[in-house]
Amino acid sequence: VNENKVLQRIEKAFATGRKGKLGLGIGDDAALFTPVVGHELLLSCDWFLEGTHFLKARHPADAVGWKCLARAVSDLAAMGGIPRCFLLSLALPESATGRWLHGFLGGLRRASKQLDCELAGGDTTRRDEILINVTVVGEVRKGQAIRRAGTRPGDVLYVTGNLGEAELGLQQLKRGTGMAGAGNSALRKHLYPEPRLAVGQWLAEKRLTSAMIDLSDGLSTDLARLCAASRVGARIHVEDLPVSSLAAGMDRVRLALHGGDDYELLLAVRKKKAVKIPARLRGVKLTRIGEITAGKKILVNEAGEWRDLVRGGWDPFRKTTR
Amino acid sequence: VNENKVLQRIEKAFATGRKGKLGLGIGDDAALFTPVVGHELLLSCDWFLEGTHFLKARHPADAVGWKCLARAVSDLAAMGGIPRCFLLSLALPESATGRWLHGFLGGLRRASKQLDCELAGGDTTRRDEILINVTVVGEVRKGQAIRRAGTRPGDVLYVTGNLGEAELGLQQLKRGTGMAGAGNSALRKHLYPEPRLAVGQWLAEKRLTSAMIDLSDGLSTDLARLCAASRVGARIHVEDLPVSSLAAGMDRVRLALHGGDDYELLLAVRKKKAVKIPARLRGVKLTRIGEITAGKKILVNEAGEWRDLVRGGWDPFRKTTR
Repeated sequence: VNENKVLQRIEKAFATGRKGKLGLGIGDDAALFTPVVGHELLLSCDWFLEGTHFLKARHPADAVGWKCLARAVSDLAAMGGIPRCFLLSLALPESATGRWLHGFLGGLRRASKQLDCELAGGDTTRRDEILINVTVVGEVRKGQAIRRAGTRPGDVLYVTGNLGEAELGLQQLKRGTGMAGAGNSALRKHLYPEPRLAVGQWLAEKRLTSAMIDLSDGLSTDLARLCAASRVGARIHVEDLPVSSLAAGMDRVRLALHGGDDYELLLAVRKKKAVKIPARLRGVKLTRIGEITAGKKILVNEAGEWRDLVRGGWDPFRKTTR
Repeated sequence: VNENKVLQRIEKAFATGRKGKLGLGIGDDAALFTPVVGHELLLSCDWFLEGTHFLKARHPADAVGWKCLARAVSDLAAMGGIPRCFLLSLALPESATGRWLHGFLGGLRRASKQLDCELAGGDTTRRDEILINVTVVGEVRKGQAIRRAGTRPGDVLYVTGNLGEAELGLQQLKRGTGMAGAGNSALRKHLYPEPRLAVGQWLAEKRLTSAMIDLSDGLSTDLARLCAASRVGARIHVEDLPVSSLAAGMDRVRLALHGGDDYELLLAVRKKKAVKIPARLRGVKLTRIGEITAGKKILVNEAGEWRDLVRGGWDPFRKTTR
């Protein structure tokens, strides 16, 4: 195996026959991309590392391929963006250049097709553990990008989908033995998350949102980031948190507040625009969960009392494995 | 230490006071970038990994910061591009979040200023070893990007600067003890390479080049890539290879043919345009080293005979440390 062979396998997996939208794909020093007139560019990158973000023995290579792109694209969804292309940086041990690489490229190609995000280039090298870094490029009509900052006291908070479902899937995966299959919707959400692109784009077009973030590290952590960006606080009503029925018998509130990896959207909407937020949008549930408040406290109600919501989501400098 | 603290240190190191050219910097889900009308975008990413590309005990953190950006920007230079911004993905052990991070950010900031390439965003996480991935975004006037493919038999081959100098610096560093300083120009080139942006941009504007690549892995390896892209061969005249006088007493030909990490440019020019290539351009030497030939053989003259030039440069799947 040499570097060119690995590159050829990647190229072959993504050879589509049709000419892509890119001026130039893999095989040059840099990829060439022609921006759409009247749009701004969105750029984001994400680590996806063996041992930190996935376990080689438990996560199917196909799911690793899907998820490394899907979670990066979720950052585009959080700004109302349209995915255009991505760069793949891949470091592999020689033992992973055969079957594992094949599975990985299969999942990555399916995500690339479904999310309409083309492989534009990348970098490969050898390493004892599998290291992945994905950079995604998206576009958004000029002036329509939804920022993380911009919310103010009185705004209403919404989330898409269910919270804590991916965490539930992770727990099932940890309890199980051997390689995970896509057993139920919680496990599926952990392995094959679907970024909320259609919802994000709709919200950007309608200019309904004052601030938005995607929930990658858990509500308690990502809400704190959303609030910090605008120097505001928030109140969350735990009885309103949307939790999957699969979580029956578990600590549903803890799951919803601190479970990571959901890739749902958390958004703030001016109070007078809240009537325009539908209960379902492009097949995705939208649930009102609280309000933005003055001051910097983030509070959650429990047994009739308001208590501080402590960041309990994912922080790589605190935990070692997800 | 938590993730936000690391982010704050990065943000602080790059706080300029002036408003940057970017619509939005670090602190959002994705960076916003407004493309210049009439230009195309260039995108490239590069690994820079502890133990593979640098040694924590021997390479100053400042040089790691400089080089991880400079080598990525070199891919833009190879297409005649203008650097615009970059994304930094950084994985660190907690032990590196203090002094090492400070030094690293210092070198990175200097490179960012000198190369006029702004920090736009990134991703940080914790890891036992230092992992770096840099994505650079550049622009080039529509239709002016210089491709790796496009050369044909009869074209003349040129390189910028001296070859094998960085390899010489690496050998000195390996022979030395303790942390390297920037002792001489070879060591300086290994630690603080300068991408040939001005030369690349001049060549793109004048449309003088039929194909170009940057020399990251050594002439023998990168020339093979340039030739493969156009299904041609080449002849290299070893007596013409520009080698630093610092290499006196060493195997100068081997250094020039196989030494990696130079980040010089290798370019092909139509024979009739060769008269327009100056001997010096923006302070950088340009040297004619051979010609493109029909067929796929890459030959080098030695003791009056032509022999096959075997790829002897850097291949991460063959060697383990640089």
